[in-house]
Amino acid sequence: MASNTSTWQNLGKAKLDSINNSIPSKWRLSSIPSIEEQRDVTSSFIHSCGLSKQEIDITETDAVGIVEKTTNGKWTAEEVTVAFCHRASLAHQLTNCLHEAFFDAAIEDAKRLDKYYAENKAPIGPLHGLPVSLKDQFHVKGVETTMGYIGWIGTFMGKKGTGQEKVFESEMVKELRALGAVLYCKTSVPHTLMAGETVNNIIGYTTNPKNRNLTCGGSSGGEGALIGLKGSPVGFGTDIGGSIRIPAAFNGLYGIRPSSGRLPYEGMANSMDGQNSVLSVVGPLATSARSLRLVIKALLSQQPWLHDPLVHEIPWREDQEKEALDLMKNSKLTFGIYKNDGIVTPHPPVQRALDIAVKTLEKMGHKVIEWKPPSHKRGIDIIAKIWMFDGGVDLHSSLGLAGEPMAEQVQALYGSAPIEPLNATKIAEVNIAKREYQKEYMEYWNSTKDQTGTGRPIDAILMPLAPFAAARPTKYKYLGYSAIVNTLDYTSCIVPVTNIDKNVDVVDKNFKPFGEQDKDIAADYDPEIYEGAHVAVQLVGRRLQEEKVLAMAEQLGNEIARSR
Amino acid sequence: MASNTSTWQNLGKAKLDSINNSIPSKWRLSSIPSIEEQRDVTSSFIHSCGLSKQEIDITETDAVGIVEKTTNGKWTAEEVTVAFCHRASLAHQLTNCLHEAFFDAAIEDAKRLDKYYAENKAPIGPLHGLPVSLKDQFHVKGVETTMGYIGWIGTFMGKKGTGQEKVFESEMVKELRALGAVLYCKTSVPHTLMAGETVNNIIGYTTNPKNRNLTCGGSSGGEGALIGLKGSPVGFGTDIGGSIRIPAAFNGLYGIRPSSGRLPYEGMANSMDGQNSVLSVVGPLATSARSLRLVIKALLSQQPWLHDPLVHEIPWREDQEKEALDLMKNSKLTFGIYKNDGIVTPHPPVQRALDIAVKTLEKMGHKVIEWKPPSHKRGIDIIAKIWMFDGGVDLHSSLGLAGEPMAEQVQALYGSAPIEPLNATKIAEVNIAKREYQKEYMEYWNSTKDQTGTGRPIDAILMPLAPFAAARPTKYKYLGYSAIVNTLDYTSCIVPVTNIDKNVDVVDKNFKPFGEQDKDIAADYDPEIYEGAHVAVQLVGRRLQEEKVLAMAEQLGNEIARSR
Repeated sequence: MASNTSTWQNLGKAKLDSINNSIPSKWRLSSIPSIEEQRDVTSSFIHSCGLSKQEIDITETDAVGIVEKTTNGKWTAEEVTVAFCHRASLAHQLTNCLHEAFFDAAIEDAKRLDKYYAENKAPIGPLHGLPVSLKDQFHVKGVETTMGYIGWIGTFMGKKGTGQEKVFESEMVKELRALGAVLYCKTSVPHTLMAGETVNNIIGYTTNPKNRNLTCGGSSGGEGALIGLKGSPVGFGTDIGGSIRIPAAFNGLYGIRPSSGRLPYEGMANSMDGQNSVLSVVGPLATSARSLRLVIKALLSQQPWLHDPLVHEIPWREDQEKEALDLMKNSKLTFGIYKNDGIVTPHPPVQRALDIAVKTLEKMGHKVIEWKPPSHKRGIDIIAKIWMFDGGVDLHSSLGLAGEPMAEQVQALYGSAPIEPLNATKIAEVNIAKREYQKEYMEYWNSTKDQTGTGRPIDAILMPLAPFAAARPTKYKYLGYSAIVNTLDYTSCIVPVTNIDKNVDVVDKNFKPFGEQDKDIAADYDPEIYEGAHVAVQLVGRRLQEEKVLAMAEQLGNEIARSR
Repeated sequence: MASNTSTWQNLGKAKLDSINNSIPSKWRLSSIPSIEEQRDVTSSFIHSCGLSKQEIDITETDAVGIVEKTTNGKWTAEEVTVAFCHRASLAHQLTNCLHEAFFDAAIEDAKRLDKYYAENKAPIGPLHGLPVSLKDQFHVKGVETTMGYIGWIGTFMGKKGTGQEKVFESEMVKELRALGAVLYCKTSVPHTLMAGETVNNIIGYTTNPKNRNLTCGGSSGGEGALIGLKGSPVGFGTDIGGSIRIPAAFNGLYGIRPSSGRLPYEGMANSMDGQNSVLSVVGPLATSARSLRLVIKALLSQQPWLHDPLVHEIPWREDQEKEALDLMKNSKLTFGIYKNDGIVTPHPPVQRALDIAVKTLEKMGHKVIEWKPPSHKRGIDIIAKIWMFDGGVDLHSSLGLAGEPMAEQVQALYGSAPIEPLNATKIAEVNIAKREYQKEYMEYWNSTKDQTGTGRPIDAILMPLAPFAAARPTKYKYLGYSAIVNTLDYTSCIVPVTNIDKNVDVVDKNFKPFGEQDKDIAADYDPEIYEGAHVAVQLVGRRLQEEKVLAMAEQLGNEIARSR
């Protein structure tokens, strides 16, 4: 049992202090305004927190813009790294978004890159000098991985004395380093990873920097808040039900959930590891779609299939990308619009965002048809069963290591104690149901060939990512819109669309709910509380269509931004 | 309970009669010689069983040779189909290799193809008029799928009144038809599919046509016997532990186990469906390596990833194939030779076949280095656990439908009754162990870069497929050499090497067994009984390297054949 000095509270507090102490004192803020005083801490607010003109210039540049300058010597890796360390320090103080900050090591790495550049007159790789943030599932030497569990502090995923602590690095970390990226921080997650908000007993709650009344999303929530504040140009999260897309959407970012087997998950910490019916996938979030492409293309150039047994040998396909861009340019695409799953109706601002996206596509000359797929409820029920295969044993036992309580946001899914795990026969039944659902959905997709007039089925689905623009704390009540994509293993990219305007996005007085759940979630929308929040849509392509989906998302996002 | 007239024995006998009655009377043999009279029923023996000169010409031509003639009108689909129906009829009478024969439907299909050709002066597809045999897991309209289970007779996979009976077709069946293939028979399997021999309570035992003392292999055993007798130019089997490669090797054929996700399994019957830790895969067996390439390339042209949610979007990669062929031609490849797994020592003829293959590669100018991978025992133990995830519930309940007994060859793995299925937590542990093993093996493979002198790691592993050239009935006692490839999900192609010569392949008097199992299996080798049997090796490439592995297997096999 824990002694007085090692209660979970004390252990969590000590870790929190150590995180906060890793912020250099020169960058500490003397006070943080209350939410009432300053709801939105992005843009001009954070600029006023001590950033220099040059630091603002650097951190307001997207990843592609940064590597343009670091790979031709215009910016040093060091100055770029310092700028992002500074801004990340501010972001953490404003939102609680970091689990680990290792700025000294990052600056040393940056200096080595600058030395390399000086000696070779060439960058070390396509990501030379690019700061990249990582969700706290990646193992990085020199720091630990807690994933928000107090029981993992000072261990390697809950085990002591493995010899791996602070030494082992995840596969993608090695690849990012080889490409020239600079790693400098790891970001907050909800413990267990199974929540659309970010909360744990170490750092507490991570808020949404655009509207601190709201969650930054989860489970890659720290990434969302950090990149939303431009404390990172690009970072990596993971997604088994929406965990990349939710924080991307809630923070006005692009974020892609690739299909499983495209990017290397090898050597990362995870929840319920070994559950292989719906795999968690890793993917980037960034301030621009082209930044997502930059890092994915760079990672694929490392041939991750030679180092991760679950990655398929599919290099970046320039031809697929070019074909999509040509079709986009020539207004030859067809989109399926899916506005409502018949279970939970999207809040008014989400409906408006969908309308904006549809009108933009139509203005661009593309065709938009109604999407009437096989029951989403069926697909959502399947993944809900898969998340419960082990009855919550893994999550509860990880929390049990330190005797800490489960956050109520996770309890909503996993209860207060584990239940009996499913057996192989039941699991096989779910796997068959999933495959049959995927087959049926795919054949529905194929069948739209007759409606598009292009000779092809639709090119992508446009749909909500969630029924809300962001959730209010403890009110992330429905994962259906994001999780259906995981059941299908489709590729989905978040496209930022607009921000909530309380005068436009008013409550629909004539709203007729489908049932209690719908009514309950509708009641959570309050224009006053939501004012200013980011609103996004997701663009869903078929399995392993990352090149095509990114090309479409970028063009659509650019056109929406131009029209704002 | 079964009534007197519907005992499993009666039901099985009725089905057997119906199979045998589907052989046209004009093609029936008046007598079959005993094994003692005629051990080898291939080649000149079967030629003497009533085949015409033209039928022999056609059936001695490989699939590539056949489509050369059917796609330019030199042979009609009908004459080719009739020739193979005739020879398949003989093959069945000699070895018991068919579960379904639907020659009339095939000849009708062939006539339609001929009509198409006459009208369009062009073939309907790259497999125009090519007869293709199918393991009895494929659903084909007009006939049933029993998979050797008496309880499946008159049902759709054990269920009555589904409306799918004799109507539903598996995805690959549709694709083969679209490519112009002619389907005409389904081949025998061991009930449950989990055996290296082919035996069930309907057709009894399928023998090896080259040496009827021995098994044709399993579980795609009917395919092996049929193609071994040239009653089919190319056919499809499945493999979750060796089931394509075993019958290919035992019958002097080429056969490839692709990695999972390359070819469409959608809509096929299976055992333990829904177990997704090691997926059964589908792949072809044929008399030449180029025939395997023909059908795989043709299937991939159908974009199976649009109709099977588990197939990856990886078209046939001409560039990978060309690169491999160039390296092969320029003697730039390196092979890892793995002669013995330290558990069961290959019989003398298998050792000799490996030596022949090594010497041939060296003569071709390639380098051969010793392969010292992570413990195969570890990898084999993992797949053995996976096969037992459900404790045998599925297999025993399928047999229980008719109350029929499990063959002793299957009981060796699954016992006489089911045991408790594993739960999700235990399954997850096995999945992690498997991934870790795959990772370790892949990094060992990568590490050979320093030994090859080519700048690349080894290009393929050369190893035994089994410790025996073929097993004697009930003596298929060790699956380690084939099953390790399934654990790793590697691509493996069988290359026929030689035949047993009792004067050369003598018992090794100085043999020192590793233990009781090794001693027991060594004792099963008897040169007198084995005389004449085919001996093969397997060439194992990395995951999803089908193009490269086929190119290497073809070149090696051709060179071995030239030197014989």
